[in-house]
Parts: sequence; structure tokens; C-alpha cells
Amino acid sequence: MLKTRQILGCSSGLVSHRWKPYSSTGSRQVSFISISTCSKPLLLSSSSSSSSTIIPTTTTLLLPGSSPRRTRFGAFSMSSAHSGPNPGGPSSSVAVHSAGNARKINFCQWCGGPTKHEIPDGEEKIRAICTVCDKIAYENPKMVVGCLIEHDNMVLLCKRKIQPSYGLWTLPAGYMEIGESATEGAIRETWEEACAEVEVLSSFAQLDIPLIGQTYVIFLARLKKPHFSPGPESSECRLFALDDIPFDSLAFSSMVVTLKLYAEDVRAGKLKFHYGIINKKPGTSPSDIHAYTLDYHLQS
Amino acid sequence: MLKTRQILGCSSGLVSHRWKPYSSTGSRQVSFISISTCSKPLLLSSSSSSSSTIIPTTTTLLLPGSSPRRTRFGAFSMSSAHSGPNPGGPSSSVAVHSAGNARKINFCQWCGGPTKHEIPDGEEKIRAICTVCDKIAYENPKMVVGCLIEHDNMVLLCKRKIQPSYGLWTLPAGYMEIGESATEGAIRETWEEACAEVEVLSSFAQLDIPLIGQTYVIFLARLKKPHFSPGPESSECRLFALDDIPFDSLAFSSMVVTLKLYAEDVRAGKLKFHYGIINKKPGTSPSDIHAYTLDYHLQS
Repeated sequence: MLKTRQILGCSSGLVSHRWKPYSSTGSRQVSFISISTCSKPLLLSSSSSSSSTIIPTTTTLLLPGSSPRRTRFGAFSMSSAHSGPNPGGPSSSVAVHSAGNARKINFCQWCGGPTKHEIPDGEEKIRAICTVCDKIAYENPKMVVGCLIEHDNMVLLCKRKIQPSYGLWTLPAGYMEIGESATEGAIRETWEEACAEVEVLSSFAQLDIPLIGQTYVIFLARLKKPHFSPGPESSECRLFALDDIPFDSLAFSSMVVTLKLYAEDVRAGKLKFHYGIINKKPGTSPSDIHAYTLDYHLQS
Repeated sequence: MLKTRQILGCSSGLVSHRWKPYSSTGSRQVSFISISTCSKPLLLSSSSSSSSTIIPTTTTLLLPGSSPRRTRFGAFSMSSAHSGPNPGGPSSSVAVHSAGNARKINFCQWCGGPTKHEIPDGEEKIRAICTVCDKIAYENPKMVVGCLIEHDNMVLLCKRKIQPSYGLWTLPAGYMEIGESATEGAIRETWEEACAEVEVLSSFAQLDIPLIGQTYVIFLARLKKPHFSPGPESSECRLFALDDIPFDSLAFSSMVVTLKLYAEDVRAGKLKFHYGIINKKPGTSPSDIHAYTLDYHLQS
């Protein structure tokens, strides 16, 4: 999966002008932030709540116990005080409009000029803008790609030998790289973490985690050869029957969701494609990977 | 969709250590780049070709007529000499291993220190590494999210009033932002470009375009009210019956693929979820949006 430390929970694109303004209010249809009219504020609504909160755009959303400055990736860690990357779980704090992250960008990557943090013309979010060359540093969510490998009615899990979530179980997965497709990235990660050659069979899930700027894309796959062994980041790789999946020892909420959906599908006799949004339950511990809601769940 | 100029065709994540090395060779199983053994070089294979080419890692891949330095987003434009962003089509040139992009990052975003361009310990790709604070600037693909809106057996298209692809037709779509989910982004983009309030019904397609570091995520949606009108970036919005979709006047290859798959599904009486990789046919013009192959097509 990932080796050590990641500073931002999102990727930053570097662009010299990009977004038009957008206007929005909330709709109960969408569980987190959605858009239904032309008015300016964003409306935060929860599928599990009847109340909604209007949040001015470019405002940082704080969950209980969070800090607007805690945009370092370590703040998103879910199991103990890990400072490493966390492709998996809800966060205790995040700047919903990325203002917090944009403010951490102090210099232009191209010319080295100092940045200012303002809302560019025609936009609604604070961005880091170079005061010398005027380029804007944009940030976008990252994709984490992985494989759910079926073999003899079991699934292959890897025990993490690195932080975060050292000693906990995960599907092989990691950040998609430039120049590869999602399937290629998932196959690569599976090779790296489980030394397993796999064939991707179908798409299984897309799980967005807006709080940490990640989208998980998980594919169903099969072993091309019945061989696997721990890669450098895994201490153990093992096949688990559905009833034996260690749900209390999984590394990330995304893995809990994926494996629960898979088990349900298998037991129902039909594998589907799932889309959903993983939101952290307010007020819960970042280390509690079961303290989430799966919102906007769509099945194909 | 997108307003003006984008410098990089990918997002850059800013990370201080991240990737472990990976080793790879090609497998005909995967149409573009895939992994099957521990040897180091990447193997580029095409589903439409019987030959394969071994590419040393960290090497820039050049297609005919391309330049290793043409990593500016304008180089990826598909219709005429647009310099703006291009969420849609194959590219005439791209650094497969992002070396070209990494080399354009000259300064650290945090401390302003100059960068060096080297392969970090434990990795295999050239990255921009700060010579002062040692942080590494990572780059990752971007997600473009949009809606395929069904209404009275027709689909809603927008005629672009901006470059690239001025005057051509597209589904409402644009870059996913930090703090939003893919559905929320798709709903937002639809509001911005077509002033239409939509409800997302299901996932329809994930289309990776590795050459330009983009992944399209398209949702089926319906109008919540039968109202739409051009937003600031559209000159016209119109519903098209399947037989009337202007396939010769679409803005991007991703739209050609999406609408073809949708028309096929409708005619077959069953809508599916599609995954695929859009690869540019070697030697074809970047402006020819029909000069692609859809590889690794999976249907759920």
C-alpha cells in the first residue's frame, strides 16, 4: 500500500486559472453536500439527520475536536497516532473547501514566488495563487485502487507491516499513479503487497471519502497462479473464508465497507457494483473504523 | 466544465516519502501496462497489437509527433490548438512515468527551496524532491465527474462556449474537488453547465485515460424539474434522442465512448456499469476524438 508519511490527504493540481464559480444549496437527496439552487451558501445535510447547516463557501468545516489547521495527513490516521499515509478511513478534521490545505502552500512550484491565499476571479474557493507568475495551485482528490481477490471461496488479505494501521488487515491497495489505469494500479499494488499475479474480473466498488479527499476503486480479481507471499509492506498474507474475515482487525473503514458489501453480495448470490460515500460519524474517534455511515449507496 | 488553462494533465500530491519500489513486466492480459513478474522494466502492450515494447522505468514515452517537454495541458487538447484544460481526450504526448511533469516542479511548495529531480530511495520514478526540507512532490491522476441525464428517452448535452472544444457537445462534467464526493461533483457540474437540478440514479461508467492522467466517472441522472438552460460555459443545452446524438460534433473521446455505451445498453434493454481504458491510437491526430481504442472493457 503506502510506505510512510503523506502530508496532504489530497492531490494538488497546478493550474493557472481553472474553476468557474459555482453556486449551491443543499438537497436532502445528497447526504453530505449537494446542490439544488443558485444561492451561494453550501448546505450540509446528513442522511441520518433532519437538520441542515448552511456553511458559507470557503469556510472550513470542523468536526468535534478538530482543528482547521490539522490538514497534515497524519491527522487523518485512524489507528493510534500514526503519521503515515492513510488510504482508508474517515478523518477527525478536514477543510471541506480545502482552504486549510491551500493555505499550507506557501510557494509556487514553478517560479518559487510566494503565494497569496485568495479566491480567484470567477471562483468561490480560497486557492494558493503565485504573487509572481499568477499560477494557481489546485488540489483534487486522490484515487486509491485495489483488488478483492477471490480464491476457493476465500478472499486474500494482507497484514500491514508499516504504519499507519500496523498489524491490521487490508486488501492490497494504494494510490493510482500517473500513466497507469485503475486496473493497472490495482494489479501493481497487489503484486507489491502480496506478490500475487492477478487478473481483474470486474469493478466492485467506488467509495468516496470526502473528508480525506480520497476515492477508493476496488476490483474483483482472481489469482492467475495459486501463489502469494508477503511483499515488503506486509508481514503476512492469508486467505480468509467469509465467516473468518477479521472485521475487528481491519486497517481502514474503506476495507470494512468493501468486505461487508462483498459478503452480503456473496450470500445473496449476486455480485454487484457499489457506489457510496463514507462519512465519519460526528464526535467519534478517528481510530474507530466502524464509526462511519455509508451514504448515497447505489448498486448496479 | 472547465474554464481556461490547465498546466498539468494530472494532480500533484505533496508528500514527504511515499512509494515503495515496484517491479513489473507486461502481461497481455492488461492492454496498456500490466504487471506480472518481479523484473524491473515496464512493458507496454496494446490489445490491438501483437508486439510489445519494453520501456525502462522513469523513461518518457513518446508517441509519434510528440515531445517529452510538451507536458503543458494544452498539448493534450484534442480540437485545434487549444491551450485550455481538456477533460476528455487522448493526448499526443505525455510522460508516462510523469518524469516530464516532475521536472517542471522547480520549487518546494512549503519552504520554497529548490527541488532536485531524482528517484527517491525505495522508489522507481523520478520525483521532484526539495533540497532543503526533503519533501517530495507527488502527482496523481485527476477525476472528472459528470452526469448522463435521461429525460423522455433523450439525453441532455451542452454545447461548449469555451475552449477547448468550443462549439462541440458534451455531457456536463468537470474536475472533482476536495471535500466533495463524485456524485456531489457531478451534480454541481450539471448545475453549473446546464442550470439543471438532477438526481443521480446509478453509476454508469469509469473510463481511465492514462495518457492524460484522468479518470472519468459518469453517473446516470434524471431531471428533478424539467428545466435547464445554458450556464456561463455553455452556449446551448439540448435534449437529443439516441438517433440524433451528434457523434461527429462531440467534444471529447470520453463522451463518444460514454454515449456509445449508453446507446448500446438502451437498445439492448439493460443499463450496465462499464469500466474501460481509453487509449489513443498511435500515429493519429490528437484532434481526432474517434481515434481511440477502448481497452480492458468490463461490464457489471
